[in-house]
Amino acid sequence: MTVSLYVIGTEITRGIISDRHIQFLSSNLTELGYTIRRAVVVPDDGSIEAELEVCAADSDIVLVTGGLGPTADDLTRRIIAREAGVPLVRNQEAWDTLYKRVGERIHGANEQQAYIPQGFELLPNPNGTAPGFRGSFEKKCPDGSVHCVTVIAMPGPPAELQPMFLNHVRPYLAKLAGHVEEQRDEYSVYLIAEARLDELCRRCSEEYNLANISWGTRFQQFRISLYVQGGSASERALFISKLRSMVGEGLIEDADDTDACTLLTNYLIENNLTISTAESCTAGLVSKMLTDRSGSSSYFWGGAVTYANSAKQKIAGVCASTLEKFGAVSRQTACEMADGIRQVSGTDLAVSLTGIAGPDGGSADKPVGTVWIGFSSAKAPSAAVCLKFASISRDSARRRFSIAALVLCRLYAMGRDVVTVAETWKYI
Amino acid sequence: MTVSLYVIGTEITRGIISDRHIQFLSSNLTELGYTIRRAVVVPDDGSIEAELEVCAADSDIVLVTGGLGPTADDLTRRIIAREAGVPLVRNQEAWDTLYKRVGERIHGANEQQAYIPQGFELLPNPNGTAPGFRGSFEKKCPDGSVHCVTVIAMPGPPAELQPMFLNHVRPYLAKLAGHVEEQRDEYSVYLIAEARLDELCRRCSEEYNLANISWGTRFQQFRISLYVQGGSASERALFISKLRSMVGEGLIEDADDTDACTLLTNYLIENNLTISTAESCTAGLVSKMLTDRSGSSSYFWGGAVTYANSAKQKIAGVCASTLEKFGAVSRQTACEMADGIRQVSGTDLAVSLTGIAGPDGGSADKPVGTVWIGFSSAKAPSAAVCLKFASISRDSARRRFSIAALVLCRLYAMGRDVVTVAETWKYI
Repeated sequence: MTVSLYVIGTEITRGIISDRHIQFLSSNLTELGYTIRRAVVVPDDGSIEAELEVCAADSDIVLVTGGLGPTADDLTRRIIAREAGVPLVRNQEAWDTLYKRVGERIHGANEQQAYIPQGFELLPNPNGTAPGFRGSFEKKCPDGSVHCVTVIAMPGPPAELQPMFLNHVRPYLAKLAGHVEEQRDEYSVYLIAEARLDELCRRCSEEYNLANISWGTRFQQFRISLYVQGGSASERALFISKLRSMVGEGLIEDADDTDACTLLTNYLIENNLTISTAESCTAGLVSKMLTDRSGSSSYFWGGAVTYANSAKQKIAGVCASTLEKFGAVSRQTACEMADGIRQVSGTDLAVSLTGIAGPDGGSADKPVGTVWIGFSSAKAPSAAVCLKFASISRDSARRRFSIAALVLCRLYAMGRDVVTVAETWKYI
Repeated sequence: MTVSLYVIGTEITRGIISDRHIQFLSSNLTELGYTIRRAVVVPDDGSIEAELEVCAADSDIVLVTGGLGPTADDLTRRIIAREAGVPLVRNQEAWDTLYKRVGERIHGANEQQAYIPQGFELLPNPNGTAPGFRGSFEKKCPDGSVHCVTVIAMPGPPAELQPMFLNHVRPYLAKLAGHVEEQRDEYSVYLIAEARLDELCRRCSEEYNLANISWGTRFQQFRISLYVQGGSASERALFISKLRSMVGEGLIEDADDTDACTLLTNYLIENNLTISTAESCTAGLVSKMLTDRSGSSSYFWGGAVTYANSAKQKIAGVCASTLEKFGAVSRQTACEMADGIRQVSGTDLAVSLTGIAGPDGGSADKPVGTVWIGFSSAKAPSAAVCLKFASISRDSARRRFSIAALVLCRLYAMGRDVVTVAETWKYI
């Protein structure tokens, strides 16, 4: 079942206000299994007439919002009646309700609000003067075929439209939708570029003959949402397990809408663990992320931002000789930073980062995008992992370093060998 | 001159995210004297092709956003080329730019992003991998007449589209419309909500009879851009000086496109000063911002993220008795944090933050949104400022705290009395 969505409002096409209906209606309709063909915003000048002609051929449902007010430029009800080939008639229920609201003023501009296309059903509006209405009619397509279309008109103000939609339109559409939405699984993917993930999905689909599986990606600041749909549940499970073994451990989580930081902090909370940080190149980003959620003081102690070498020595306890011998971006420094801050803080865990975010400061053996991430724990030997990202910007490098630290820190806390895990990350 | 606007994005037609382009583009186009015929949102599945057919007859300009990414479902460039009746050809400038960003990974999904329709002009994209393009061609209308249409395609992410539109598309459209661009001044405004800024501008215009001055605002993550246009240069100067005296010192800077952090770090670099931080509620956000630019090691030493009280004592040198007597969110703690970290670091300046970001942890005298910001310097007495923000979320509270610290820190470094300055901030 397909839907075209029309938002009528000159204030929107002139950029005075922003649309507030498209997302609300689209998400509801998608949930019910409808496919949105298009969402169109048109001015309040009758343009809707030409637009309605276009969509009749390819949409089962036409949702129209706005253009039902009492002012002269609200032509919608007349246009829909003409489209359906019926006259506008006074609806007694609408008239009575309107009379209760506006009294004698009904004999003026408001009067037309009690008229709806003949044969259409009234959608009551307890929150304003304009009721909505709904009706179906047959429409001749450009190719000569005849097609049944249902038009639903609702008032423009969100405070009137939303309750009307939820109480009267959504239940009707739910019943009307005879089919079940395609099964769709959602995953969170970390550290893999969107274009590369798409390539890997294609490879997976080809290599394992999973042509009926389709996928889509959505880039978000700290992760990519991967949607896998089509096929049977076991085919989708095969697809994702093959994809997982391609990209390595920890980079695809089936957590619905969950970023790496939430996964780690959930783990800390569930296991009653505390953490501290020592950050050089990321300079506080990991700490900031760890405290994005309220109540973070239950697991987060604080940390050291050790940008200068003297900061690494003074507040994270790194030895001057370590810095001199191995450099600031090294396994040894990362480990000493993590151990050092854990000693000061007394937390269960500590994570450290030291790397080259660029664009300057790289060298042949430590190019821009290199980071050492250190881990320290009261219960396990310290460890450090080196990653090299082909990063496109300083900002993205620092974001990737941080996500890698958060992903690995959870695995480290779970007792996994993070050095081995990181070796499986072939596509970051 | 008429425009049709196409927003391509399955995430929008599925209701996962809301559209962010229609209002931005419509308000700009309306300002230039264009009429928007329709704004259409379509999924990323090739639907745009049928839509483009429809609008060719009634629009002089077709603006297309999105669908230029590297994944398989981004069909836009192919469809536009077909519509124009030309092949897609590799654009050397686009290829070179892309190669610089992604290197050898260009030989894969990214490759197609260097192709644009033959004869079209490239619109460079310094903020992403997908360049835009623009071209005109003749289109046969359903009634047989021939009509010239200009198609302009831009990438979907707002951070890429907006600068491309403002720098390359708006000037082109202004010229095309025979529109003389009005003189326009741009300002950066900090800490004042967009709606309130608009109110203050209106008040200013009314109180000082500046009816021919118009203004526009654009919300950005860490500031609001304020555009002032119309009238004479002296009227615009009067407007902004009145507005400045209304809102207080330091909150409106004429710096074009400059955030508070850049203003501070520019000042530090110019004056060869170093800085360290001690952050509680912001937990690293200020440090992260101070190091967003490359070369920040010339002025940034590092700092302490002192979330727990024991962290305030152990790495920022706050006395246990101070915490006990005055609490963590107090003038005394803020001052000791700033003094403490400056003593460890030996930097010229230090800034500290301790506050209540919420949503929990507030009390009657220290409600959510309260922050103490401390300043320490080798050359001036320490100072601390208390601000109370009516914040809408934890995230926005932490962002405002950080911006306030950056704005005040520059004024403090310049020798201003920050306590008095903050008292003039009536509308934050």
